[in-house]
Amino acid sequence: MSRLDKFINRMTSQRACLNHAANLTSDMPGPVYELGLGNGRTYHHMVEIMPGREVYVFERAVASHPESTPPDEMLMLGDVYETLPQALERFGPTASLIHADLGGHNPKKNDEFARSISKVIEPMLAKGGLMVASDRMYFEGLTEQPLPEGAVEGSCFIYG
Amino acid sequence: MSRLDKFINRMTSQRACLNHAANLTSDMPGPVYELGLGNGRTYHHMVEIMPGREVYVFERAVASHPESTPPDEMLMLGDVYETLPQALERFGPTASLIHADLGGHNPKKNDEFARSISKVIEPMLAKGGLMVASDRMYFEGLTEQPLPEGAVEGSCFIYG
Repeated sequence: MSRLDKFINRMTSQRACLNHAANLTSDMPGPVYELGLGNGRTYHHMVEIMPGREVYVFERAVASHPESTPPDEMLMLGDVYETLPQALERFGPTASLIHADLGGHNPKKNDEFARSISKVIEPMLAKGGLMVASDRMYFEGLTEQPLPEGAVEGSCFIYG
Repeated sequence: MSRLDKFINRMTSQRACLNHAANLTSDMPGPVYELGLGNGRTYHHMVEIMPGREVYVFERAVASHPESTPPDEMLMLGDVYETLPQALERFGPTASLIHADLGGHNPKKNDEFARSISKVIEPMLAKGGLMVASDRMYFEGLTEQPLPEGAVEGSCFIYG
């Protein structure tokens, strides 16, 4: 399996999991969080599949495509270890859907980051809310959910 | 259709077209050219699906993933307007497969580049060779070929 194959699996699985999680949480009133903006393709997709839902983006510095740049008021600029607790204080444990594609090239570093950020993310999710991640996360009270059709095992994870 | 949808279409179409073109040219002895390396995922795929065939990469500066970095002797470093004519002088019109993902964010600039680089690429291809491109190209003697199953019209092009 080539790196192109793995990448296509990751992107198609991410889309399938986001579509599935957006559908399952569609009646929930709380905000949606996108951790990391990058090029902005996934943010663009999230806004499109969740009309009427507020999508906040947590990012250190914006470097996205002009068509995928969030409005200022939806942007939480800074280190996620600071901005996530600030959002918890502001919104409480109300998030209906949280997505993160940590996506670094170093699997060991990714895993270390997933372990430490899991503790910060877990209290933000509303009861019934879902977390979609491209890497395995380490939650105490959330459990791994079955993947939808079209998602490849190990390429994406859903917790709830 | 979101930018994520379009991107997934482009990547899956690129893979389908490369697999198809690699298969159709599998008996040809000439080299394979990858124009632009980027992250190196597509180069990694090309090497995997064409074992025993020489894959040369034309790139201004290497910034690829370590797993997808070509050996020095397969790398044509520099401006393609200089390195492509040099390769034509060295190998003659022998290329069995040429791939290019120009992939810029500005469609107008991409199209201008496609127009001017088409003239440089066309004489490099062997008789029976194929060009796979993510953008429409402008060849005098080559014609657009039908796309294989799994490729989305307009997301990839095959010329031969």
